[in-house]
Amino acid sequence: MAELPSHIDGYGDVRPFASAFANLEAVRRTASRIRSVPPGQQKVLPDLAAAIDASGLRNGGTISFHHHLRNGDGVLNAVMEAIASRGLRDLRVAASALFPVHAPLVQHIEAGIVSRICASTIYGPVAHSVMAARLAAPALMYTHGGRARCLESGELHIDVAFVGAPTADTYGNVSGVNGRAACGPLGYAIADVQCADCVIAVTDNLVPYPAFPSDITQDYVDFVVPVPSIGDPTQIVSGTTRPTSDPDALRIASLATRVIESSGLLVDGFSFQAGAGGASLAASAYLKQIMMTRRVQGSFASGGITGSIVEMLDAGLFRALFDVQCLDLAAVDSYRRNEAHQAMSASMYANPHNRGCVANQLDAVILGAAEIDCDFNVNVTTAADGSILGGSGGHADIAAGAKLAIITTRLTAGKFPKIVERVGTVTTPGETVDALVTEEGVAVNPRRSDLADRLRAGGIGVRPIGELLERSVQIAGESGSTSLSRPDGPVVAVVEYRDGTVIDVVRSRTA
Amino acid sequence: MAELPSHIDGYGDVRPFASAFANLEAVRRTASRIRSVPPGQQKVLPDLAAAIDASGLRNGGTISFHHHLRNGDGVLNAVMEAIASRGLRDLRVAASALFPVHAPLVQHIEAGIVSRICASTIYGPVAHSVMAARLAAPALMYTHGGRARCLESGELHIDVAFVGAPTADTYGNVSGVNGRAACGPLGYAIADVQCADCVIAVTDNLVPYPAFPSDITQDYVDFVVPVPSIGDPTQIVSGTTRPTSDPDALRIASLATRVIESSGLLVDGFSFQAGAGGASLAASAYLKQIMMTRRVQGSFASGGITGSIVEMLDAGLFRALFDVQCLDLAAVDSYRRNEAHQAMSASMYANPHNRGCVANQLDAVILGAAEIDCDFNVNVTTAADGSILGGSGGHADIAAGAKLAIITTRLTAGKFPKIVERVGTVTTPGETVDALVTEEGVAVNPRRSDLADRLRAGGIGVRPIGELLERSVQIAGESGSTSLSRPDGPVVAVVEYRDGTVIDVVRSRTA
Repeated sequence: MAELPSHIDGYGDVRPFASAFANLEAVRRTASRIRSVPPGQQKVLPDLAAAIDASGLRNGGTISFHHHLRNGDGVLNAVMEAIASRGLRDLRVAASALFPVHAPLVQHIEAGIVSRICASTIYGPVAHSVMAARLAAPALMYTHGGRARCLESGELHIDVAFVGAPTADTYGNVSGVNGRAACGPLGYAIADVQCADCVIAVTDNLVPYPAFPSDITQDYVDFVVPVPSIGDPTQIVSGTTRPTSDPDALRIASLATRVIESSGLLVDGFSFQAGAGGASLAASAYLKQIMMTRRVQGSFASGGITGSIVEMLDAGLFRALFDVQCLDLAAVDSYRRNEAHQAMSASMYANPHNRGCVANQLDAVILGAAEIDCDFNVNVTTAADGSILGGSGGHADIAAGAKLAIITTRLTAGKFPKIVERVGTVTTPGETVDALVTEEGVAVNPRRSDLADRLRAGGIGVRPIGELLERSVQIAGESGSTSLSRPDGPVVAVVEYRDGTVIDVVRSRTA
Repeated sequence: MAELPSHIDGYGDVRPFASAFANLEAVRRTASRIRSVPPGQQKVLPDLAAAIDASGLRNGGTISFHHHLRNGDGVLNAVMEAIASRGLRDLRVAASALFPVHAPLVQHIEAGIVSRICASTIYGPVAHSVMAARLAAPALMYTHGGRARCLESGELHIDVAFVGAPTADTYGNVSGVNGRAACGPLGYAIADVQCADCVIAVTDNLVPYPAFPSDITQDYVDFVVPVPSIGDPTQIVSGTTRPTSDPDALRIASLATRVIESSGLLVDGFSFQAGAGGASLAASAYLKQIMMTRRVQGSFASGGITGSIVEMLDAGLFRALFDVQCLDLAAVDSYRRNEAHQAMSASMYANPHNRGCVANQLDAVILGAAEIDCDFNVNVTTAADGSILGGSGGHADIAAGAKLAIITTRLTAGKFPKIVERVGTVTTPGETVDALVTEEGVAVNPRRSDLADRLRAGGIGVRPIGELLERSVQIAGESGSTSLSRPDGPVVAVVEYRDGTVIDVVRSRTA
């Protein structure tokens, strides 16, 4: 691990990451504030400005958003515009994730309307603002499970949570499956509505009471605001969720699937999660074939759910899905029509501080990497040049929970090696990673000699990760350094592990 | 209202009831304790004794139960037997309701194993123990919404919650719709599992992970215990839920329906709840005919749900049901097969201290009474002889929430008048009651002259409640006193209104 400062201005004292399962003591869920709604009181307000006024939001407050519409989200920008029009300043934006579509936040940051950012992943222009140290405090980057934990523990207190509601009724029952912008379960918003002082549902499909089925129920919602559009559902498939036809990616996917096959886990009751990257989607397709051939009936698949996982459910290869967020419209349709396609909250998904998250029940997961190092630490937070390119999302969560966490990656990305001596930023600690699969072979974490034995027995060559590192550097055509030197400027982002300890920081380059 | 003591031993200082909507300020939901479950840790324990040991329950602790299996419940007795075998003492039993089947509690009370009782309703032998002052402190009687409020506020802290699970998987996902003892939604257990320090699911249908659909999810459950039987589902139809063929009851039901019809509320969007008494069931049948004839499409019906309400849903007379508890097996079946039959928690149902409960959205409700007085105060807590015969359940909750709260009752029960000058115990304050319907006519609360006008316009004679009182006394053949004198012994039960104020007490008779 990189050396961490003991204190970070704008963050506070640093509780350093110790190990993946060090902080699993009993915890307390925070108290939350509830404004009672008596009979006869209406919840529908005419517009966002009225709702912001009614919420009691003040300068310096914290507002939250969820990213189920991903790069099609129209709620955050509309809310921020209304907030700007109310003259509020110095706000903290606690989003589950930020996308390129949220570029207008940059202007709000420049104008001092937004001074702090927390998110599990940050893609696009806002990441540039963070890197340029345009915020009053370092950005705070969580895992998806860690964000739920942080809300439930009270470490992150939300004054006003905004819920993008594909359908809402006049008393605040919210459905993600009906409406023009249907996006499926609203798993990332659940901890927000449970813990925030005030919850505002923003909808472009206001319907008579009661709306059902409800992903969020009326007892958690203070106000309902109709708007012309909450966003563009066709952009739910965006960012990392496109399939691949690249031969290397397909080779990696096939090899990752063989690793699962040889691991001994692919028996009845098998459970699985794949990221939404191209190799993961391809691996799901291979896995489907193997499970059909071997007549394995899995128990469940989880995660952000894609159409490829839905196909496996529909083929009877899993009995159920646990879905925190649909990653394409085929998944949205499945959630609507199939009872076996279950919603889960981010806390149920991946929070280490509850009575047992779904991640704990996973057998095998396939995850990507921007970089991985000789200790199997994985970076999905920063690019080779040190700039923020995403963040953990559920990466560190499911690596920790699963019996077999497989990282798939090409050896290089352009001129940069992806197997490095030391990752630019640690997102997921190596102790939770079991195997690395590249286009030139597989490496197994030395902690898992049992796995290496199984793979060899399955005819899979297992190479020392050092060899793959060498090949990575060789192909990238670099020598002497396996990655760029770490930036040494001020801390611009703090990377919290799922248990709330600091696992790494992101620094800007000094000018 | 009766005069209340300012302090009650074993209860504390009394915050006296002021008015139905006096305490609707912002509140805080309590913090709760969570034991983190790491990957690999199992939840299934061999038996109840092992689970009680694992829970950390100590002498003096509080344990909770829910009553979805009603008089068929086998969980409470089995748990108490295991607790007795562990040598624990001085426990508080916080049940959502107690039934005759829980008679073995009497021995546990006598033995000092149970020293305190809280419940929304208490039927049967345990009520006799309460009346006989066999407990170390007065019993605490809530409304259903008030119980959820009390749990969420932390006023009632549960050490260990026991969930009777018709189906549970090995990691604690609980379903009420599948299994031998399927009972439908588990609405009364939700606040318990959210607020208790430890949650134990007790099941006679342990299935592989994951069970779905889930009424309670794994992140709320610490342990799962398989037992031979959680109870007898045929006894769900019990107590107050039998239909009637009595001519007086049918006349009352018909008249109550005409009151609704004349109230102006019976238009599209109409919402409705009926108790489970015979007159209520009959009224539902009449209402069904009127709604079909007038082609009214209601929005929802709520409550404990019966087959008669399911028939109205199936006939298209309501778009949805909100169900906290199925009151017969037809309702269980409907919940299983019909998405429009939605579950709700007790808090969502009736808690005055959340962001808007379902009770707030009700148009008309039909409720029973043991007694009603000239101020329209209703007693469903004690019999004419002063002994406990039930308790509020949702009575006071929905009377407060609904636009039109109708009390239906015969004028007499045997030799006792049911219309009295002053009820033996105030369960539901008169300010929340709009009309009284008896076999000899209708009285309207003077606060609701608008309603009286509408009823007269609809051809319904409206009589002063004093006239009905006179008839009641006349028929009962008594004079001089309209009810027995109130017992004047020590307080044996404290009746809390839904907001946590004390609305009345139950006293034993001095020897």
